[in-house]
Amino acid sequence: MSEFTPQDYQMMSRAIELAKGGIYTTAPNPNVGCVITLDDDIVGEGFHYRAGEPHAEVHALRMAGDKSVGATAYVTLEPCSHYGRTPPCAEGLIKAKVAKVICAMEDPNPQVAGRGIKMLRDAGIEVQVGLLESDAMDLNSAFIKRMKTGMPFVQLKMAASLDGQTALSNGQSQWITSPQARQDVQNYRAQAGAILSTSKTVIEDNASLNVRWSELPESVQTKLPESEVRQPVRVVLDRQQQLSSELKFYSTDGERIVVSAQGDVAPLLNDSEQIDLKSTFANLVSQHNINHLWVEAGATLASSLIKEGLVDELVLYLAPKIMGSDGRGLFGVLGLESMAEVIELDIQDIRQVGQDIRLVARLKNKEA
Amino acid sequence: MSEFTPQDYQMMSRAIELAKGGIYTTAPNPNVGCVITLDDDIVGEGFHYRAGEPHAEVHALRMAGDKSVGATAYVTLEPCSHYGRTPPCAEGLIKAKVAKVICAMEDPNPQVAGRGIKMLRDAGIEVQVGLLESDAMDLNSAFIKRMKTGMPFVQLKMAASLDGQTALSNGQSQWITSPQARQDVQNYRAQAGAILSTSKTVIEDNASLNVRWSELPESVQTKLPESEVRQPVRVVLDRQQQLSSELKFYSTDGERIVVSAQGDVAPLLNDSEQIDLKSTFANLVSQHNINHLWVEAGATLASSLIKEGLVDELVLYLAPKIMGSDGRGLFGVLGLESMAEVIELDIQDIRQVGQDIRLVARLKNKEA
Repeated sequence: MSEFTPQDYQMMSRAIELAKGGIYTTAPNPNVGCVITLDDDIVGEGFHYRAGEPHAEVHALRMAGDKSVGATAYVTLEPCSHYGRTPPCAEGLIKAKVAKVICAMEDPNPQVAGRGIKMLRDAGIEVQVGLLESDAMDLNSAFIKRMKTGMPFVQLKMAASLDGQTALSNGQSQWITSPQARQDVQNYRAQAGAILSTSKTVIEDNASLNVRWSELPESVQTKLPESEVRQPVRVVLDRQQQLSSELKFYSTDGERIVVSAQGDVAPLLNDSEQIDLKSTFANLVSQHNINHLWVEAGATLASSLIKEGLVDELVLYLAPKIMGSDGRGLFGVLGLESMAEVIELDIQDIRQVGQDIRLVARLKNKEA
Repeated sequence: MSEFTPQDYQMMSRAIELAKGGIYTTAPNPNVGCVITLDDDIVGEGFHYRAGEPHAEVHALRMAGDKSVGATAYVTLEPCSHYGRTPPCAEGLIKAKVAKVICAMEDPNPQVAGRGIKMLRDAGIEVQVGLLESDAMDLNSAFIKRMKTGMPFVQLKMAASLDGQTALSNGQSQWITSPQARQDVQNYRAQAGAILSTSKTVIEDNASLNVRWSELPESVQTKLPESEVRQPVRVVLDRQQQLSSELKFYSTDGERIVVSAQGDVAPLLNDSEQIDLKSTFANLVSQHNINHLWVEAGATLASSLIKEGLVDELVLYLAPKIMGSDGRGLFGVLGLESMAEVIELDIQDIRQVGQDIRLVARLKNKEA
């Protein structure tokens, strides 16, 4: 097992922070940061900003110039080994004559994993792997999920009162959560590859499902100029083709995918004539290059997604309110018959957002 | 407006920390701490430990001995001015010839407020009031509520899944929360003046409603030896006298109050022949000396308490689980017809307890 020095930890930490500079823009590419040091001094650094633009290593090598000779490169992800829209970074590092490369993690794609590392080693460069690996993985949950499974990473956003109600019995629900919570949702949308909802929600709320820069939290606006906003693809499940062209959804700019029997995605109905969610999600990955799906939906779709095991993370806003059990519940009927069947999650984060609470929890994998 | 020095803040902070030494034992008395300084050195300190035993000032003056002459006394509550089971502390401070007394807050009882301060000032002692007042008030929420309103401070404990369900549709609920959450409940019970529940809950769970030292969190066990545990009074609402003597509730030591048409508390039925909760709570204060009521109940009682505005604080344990809306809801039917009628709360604290979340929220006062 390789040993890492305190300097190594510090530099990889910095590379991870740099990588975060791309969270709003790199999709569907991963977030990657790179730091190059010579004799313990930083001589180059960079991160991947946008798909099609240079990778992190290219920025860092350009900055290092001649000082890359004999240097150490810290990269949050194994350097690529293939010719895409840019030449392979492993080749760049070899040409720049770095002496050592430390990667936080291997490429998660099992078909390419290790090739970049092999290319470097074959060229006589020392390579170490695994420094701050879990932090590096957190940067790219969606990219990793896609590469390993062919399915998107799905975040399900919901909002309710403390007693789990999303609306009163008469349907009233505006507003359960605070303006700050709604800004926070905009921040999540801005990071997603696609936003998915149902025609019911889109029609009822006349929802545009887009990112509105003016509604982003101020702290995000300072990092992300309006001109740099990347609009996620907007996906609506509309089996019965109820969407009408007068809706804001159609008058707002941005890519649209409508899933219906005659929609943009091949008709994917299951035996019960419902949209087959699993195939639809797989298609969003393979045909539309979407790694990260942000779902805003009502109880019916939420329950289906949960039952089919398609949700990775629940992002739940809880408003400090009590509405009574005659309201509308977060999820529909799940028909559970014993406590052993209860859907379990792991809390990742709890915090106050405005006057509300935001809770992020990962769905536990149940063995089939 | 009096000005306080950094030394003053430090000493009052210390007095408040000292006062917390009595949180398990002083009921129905308030928690009070006292620090005495001479020339910026601490010469005496103490806190009120148990009703009937010496007050904080007495302990601190004993420790200070002759050094109380010309000293400054920091007390978290206005020194008492009346002869009770112990002589008035204001008199003790005068006899001990302290030069100055700083109190965090006045006595909350409007009929006595200021008398201790007046007694001290009449004796030529300089008195300042209001240092760290809100921290001092947090020490004694229940005592203050009782003194100001004649009603107990009511904490309502509930536990549910993330979607607000307390049981599956078949009634199964053991266990929604983790062992750590259940230990945390024991810690709350140990601080309460009384634990209130319904005969339904007591019968279904064969609940003893007591404090079990072995089930307290280890961090509490180290502060509170088993022999020092004060059992809260156990109050059960049992209008139809369904409790039978075989229940654990009867075989467990500790004071019991059964509220029924022929119970220990005078029959308090309202026009609908239900137990009148407001009068019952007022009686628990006036006849049984209970300031702080910890309620563990089901949806029916919880809804009644909320509707009647009798709850001060909700202590809600949320387990990272999803149960579906076919389970049993936290509250019953509230019949709210507009978002303006929704019950609002202020979050006081959110934290993880074991794998669960504990949320503490104060009910907002709605103007009638």
